[in-house]
Formats: sequence, structure tokens, C-alpha cells
Amino acid sequence: MIEDKNPSKTSISELGEFGLIEHLTKNIKITQKTTVKGIGDDAAVLSCDAKEQLVVTTDLLVEKIHFDLSYMPLKHLGYKAVVVNLSDVYAMNAKATQITVSLAVSNRFPVEALDELYAGIKTAAKIYNVDIVGGDTTSSVSGLLISITALGSATKKEIVYRNGAKENDLLVVTGDLGAAYLGLQVLEREKKVFEVNPKAQPDLAPYTYLIERQLKPEARKDIPPLLKELDVLPTAMIDISDGLSSEIIHLCKQSKVGCNLYEDKIPLDPQVISTCEEFNIDSTTIALNGGEDYELLFTVKQEDFPKIKGNPNLSIIGHITAEKEGVHLITRANTKIPLIARGWNAVKEKE
Amino acid sequence: MIEDKNPSKTSISELGEFGLIEHLTKNIKITQKTTVKGIGDDAAVLSCDAKEQLVVTTDLLVEKIHFDLSYMPLKHLGYKAVVVNLSDVYAMNAKATQITVSLAVSNRFPVEALDELYAGIKTAAKIYNVDIVGGDTTSSVSGLLISITALGSATKKEIVYRNGAKENDLLVVTGDLGAAYLGLQVLEREKKVFEVNPKAQPDLAPYTYLIERQLKPEARKDIPPLLKELDVLPTAMIDISDGLSSEIIHLCKQSKVGCNLYEDKIPLDPQVISTCEEFNIDSTTIALNGGEDYELLFTVKQEDFPKIKGNPNLSIIGHITAEKEGVHLITRANTKIPLIARGWNAVKEKE
Repeated sequence: MIEDKNPSKTSISELGEFGLIEHLTKNIKITQKTTVKGIGDDAAVLSCDAKEQLVVTTDLLVEKIHFDLSYMPLKHLGYKAVVVNLSDVYAMNAKATQITVSLAVSNRFPVEALDELYAGIKTAAKIYNVDIVGGDTTSSVSGLLISITALGSATKKEIVYRNGAKENDLLVVTGDLGAAYLGLQVLEREKKVFEVNPKAQPDLAPYTYLIERQLKPEARKDIPPLLKELDVLPTAMIDISDGLSSEIIHLCKQSKVGCNLYEDKIPLDPQVISTCEEFNIDSTTIALNGGEDYELLFTVKQEDFPKIKGNPNLSIIGHITAEKEGVHLITRANTKIPLIARGWNAVKEKE
Repeated sequence: MIEDKNPSKTSISELGEFGLIEHLTKNIKITQKTTVKGIGDDAAVLSCDAKEQLVVTTDLLVEKIHFDLSYMPLKHLGYKAVVVNLSDVYAMNAKATQITVSLAVSNRFPVEALDELYAGIKTAAKIYNVDIVGGDTTSSVSGLLISITALGSATKKEIVYRNGAKENDLLVVTGDLGAAYLGLQVLEREKKVFEVNPKAQPDLAPYTYLIERQLKPEARKDIPPLLKELDVLPTAMIDISDGLSSEIIHLCKQSKVGCNLYEDKIPLDPQVISTCEEFNIDSTTIALNGGEDYELLFTVKQEDFPKIKGNPNLSIIGHITAEKEGVHLITRANTKIPLIARGWNAVKEKE
């Protein structure tokens, strides 16, 4: 569909740079009280709440590195590009408020394709209640690239860094792990089947959760308010979209602590377990290293245990130890093995 | 040089994503008092001055669309990528404080090439006194892409939008125009000569100013403090890097006014005049539509005339009229012709 050069489609060069930006950003509404001026000037203007600090994060998504348009609908891609950034804002225990969206697109994309992409971006902005306040749109020689910067805010006391974990703190993860990676494996398998036999009708019913986690992930907007409601301030927090094991290592390194992670505590969805069996892969490896789970990892003081235990959104998966004890996985067989980061690496060539 | 696959160069995949980011961002120093946390967490954290508002702007630079590495040294490219963004901050009459830097790079770039690029980025950050507080580094299938977001601040009273110009205001431009475009023409001519005869030694002495304006442009950091010193608050202001004529039209459209621009008042450097004669092109056309001059266009009340007249940084090039009178160029022959935007367009295909 994307490659369609059907003359009824509108070429982006017909609109020109300013026309295209105007076309894509019309009807964008401003809802945040801190947005003084959105799109339409040299820069957006935001007001500051004197009691709050600002958080800023940015992410690039590149075609054929981070996404494959043969199974990623453009609308979902736009949605996901926003979610990926907001996840980093929530990982600071902040609320997200504004985003800027920059696109580089080759001429193989008609305006209608960019409309789809923008529809996903706008939907995410609406659902996550952030204003689109700026951006840039330009050509690329090949492919599509999306660069989003997200802004958020929280009081100084609320903001949680990676480096505050202390010995004996509990290690907690939100949601469940490994599904997004398995969703990608299922989609890649179906793509190969389709290439061999375009008439094959895949039965994706057993994998709906996995595919949704891959194509339409959600960021944990609910976690900062949930923690506030539970009266729990994490001692350290990090987004684990690059993989649980690499992010545990980051958190421990920056906090100068060690940790024990318990294999039997890692939260897995039943579809992850059954699909790992089908693909004959180890579910723990997937949960540790699969990545793209936009969940949050955090540490809390032991005294907060009663406040979080049994919460369906939170799993206690380990505890913090002294730095010299290192970072270990305690297996189901009660073996202690060093945790190794094998997370997803965007600068390594894909095979 | 870039294409050199010399095994003594370090491949980016050797370092991996985290290693590469760590390598490129080590030794980055924080100097802004509003930077609470720079690189190293899920997001940067900034404090807000309650008396100030925040400005946010973002720009993408794409290889073969915005720059050609055959004559753009990587260090200059990094410098320019920062300048392009800061110019938009100054166009709000604000001071620039922080930037985030995202790169997508193909594997043809060794780590040493990215070091060069980052050296230019760091030099610009130092000279313009902004902190590098975050970013993302990833692979691309082909080419190099730089996405920078710049943040700045100013009091609510100081911030100048595009839409405040009023009838009888004076139209003022900083610096001189057309040199960057001509610099590009000279470089492209020399590239063709080089392709035909690699031993040719170009004499670039008559074009030094033009080439510098193309390869190492500067943003007008000096203008907001200069205006403050002169006690002049512009009624409207805009960056004119997309071309003087298109930006005059933007400013007039958003301010709902018309304007008369005087051809004989447009500031031109002597090298622009002599090179236009050599290339047999009209210097006014170049000054109006060449683009890439990181200068500022603004309007001031007539009563401010004594404060700005004779200032070597500022040229009064016209005045604002009623909207119904339209936007016109008054030629040297005293003919009144409608101004047309023929500025540079990043979504049109290059010929």
C-alpha cells in the first residue's frame, strides 16, 4: 500500500514543506494549561509552574531498524512513536505534557500515508493528554524516520532518578514481560509465510496479546498516580524497553548496588508461556532480554511492602544487595548466575 | 574520508548503542543553572524560573537533502546543526539554555567520524553557552540524520511572536543576505570541477565570506541582548533561514498586515555583489530567496527609529502597511511588484 504510486494519491512535493506541515498539523488542539503557544511560530512557548521541574526526553525511530512497514500499519507506528517517548517521562515519575514531532520521509510516501501516521500520533496525544507543540517535516533520500521529544513535569520531590536504590530495597516491575518480542517473532514468521504463499490465511488468534504488545504498546501513564495513591515514592526508577536485564544492570550500576532477581517471580502472560513452548525458546531469556516492553522497573524501601503487595499492576521480582555482591539471577533451580545484558541494540547491524 | 573502510577505524557496532552514547557524551559539562540533570537518566531534568517562560524548537538535518558531506566537514556540520536550532530560539527574543541531540547513522561512519561531528556540536554548545542534556543515537539504513531540539527561556514580556506587527512599524533585518546560498553555489561548482579534474586547485579566496556563511553559519545570539540594551522590544520577529521573502510573507500573514520592502535597502556583502556578477544572477533574487542566512527579521514601532538607526547590525528595509495593501517589493526603479515566496523547500525533490 505504501509503495503504491497510484496517481490518485497526493505527492508530498505538491504541498511543499509549509503546506505539508500546515496540512498535517491543522486541527491540533491545545489542552495543557502550560502550553502558551503551540505550532506556528519559530518555537513553542510553555509556562512553568514554579513548584515543578521539567523533564525532557527524545527518541528516534528509523525504518528497517526500529520498524518494518510490511506489518506495522502507519497509524500504529505513529501511536507507538509517541508511547516510546512518554514511557521515559513516566519513568521519571512525572506527568507528560507536550511533544514535538519531526518526520523525515522519502517521496515514496504519499500525503495520505503521512495522514495515517499523523492520525496515530494525534490519537496517542489525545489518549495520553499531551499537546503536540512543534516539529519539523522534511524529505529523506530513503525511508521514514520519526524523531519525537517529550516534555513533562513533576515536583522536585516526586522526580525519581536511576541512582537512588539502596541495599535491602525491593525490586518491582510493572505489567508482564516478553510479549512484545514474541509478537515480533510471530509477525516475522507470518511475513515469511506470506512471501512464500500470499494466499495463506494466518491464524493469529492465539497471539493477539503478543501482537498488540508489539504493534500498539502502551506506556505506563497510570504508574506515577498509582504510586502517589499508594503513598509510595520509589527510590529509583527506569524504563525497561531496552530489556529487563540491561536495565537492572543500569539501575544497579548508577545506584552503586547489587541485586538478586528471582526467576520464578518474573511476570509472564499465559500467551508468552505457550508461545515460548511453541517456538521452543526459554521464556526467562525472552522476559530478560526481549525488550520493547514499555514497563517500568523501580525500587522501594522494604517498609513499603504492605502498600504494594498484591497489587495486580506490580510484581516484586527481587531485592537490592550490596554492590560487591553483584547482580544475579536466582533460577527456579535455586542456582545463582550473573545477570548479563543482552538487550536490544540499535547500532548493531540486523542479521 | 568518510567512506574509508580502513580497518584502523572503529566500527560503531563494536561499541554498541550504550557504549557509543557513552563514548560520544563523556566529558560533557553542565554550565546552565537550570540544568538539574543532563545525560544519564530516562530524561533530563530542568528547573524553571517562575518569572520566565520556556521556548522549545526542533529541526532535522538530513544527508543529501540539507547537506552534502563531500564538501561539508563533519565538524562544521555538527556546529551548523546546533546553530540552525538556536536561531529559532533567538527569533523568540529568548536566550538558549539546553539542547538534545539525536543521530541516525549508517555503518559507513566509523566512530572517529562521529567524534568529529560531536566535536562540532560540543564547540557550538560551548560558544553559545547551552548544555547538551540528552539525545538518542541509532543506526540508519543509509546516510546521516541529525535531529536537535533546543530549549530557551525569557520573561513573558520579552518573548516576541510573529503576529504582533502593526501598520507603520519599521521592518528591520540583521546582518546581510544571500551569502550562504552563493557559498553553496561556489562549493557545488568546485565539486564539479574536482570531479572532472581531481588535481585542480580551486582559488577560493574571493569567496571566503560566502563559504564561511554556508559551512559555518552563526546564529544571532547577540540580538536579544542588543535589543534589550537599545531598549527596543520588537512587535514581531522571525528567523529568515528559509528565505527573506517567504518569511516576510509569513510575518505579514500572521500579523494580518501588508508591507513595502525596499530593494535598495537590502543589505548585501561586497562578495555577494561581485559573485552575483560573476555568476550572472540577480543579487536581489538571491537575497530574497537564497535562504540559509541565519539572520532575524523583526518589526519595531516608528518611535524606536532613533534607537536603531545607524546600528551596524541592523538594516531598516521597509515598513508595515495595511493588510489590504498587500506585500510588495519597491524596486530600485521605483516599481511596486508583489513579493512571492520562492524560498527553499525541503520536501521538494532536488533536481
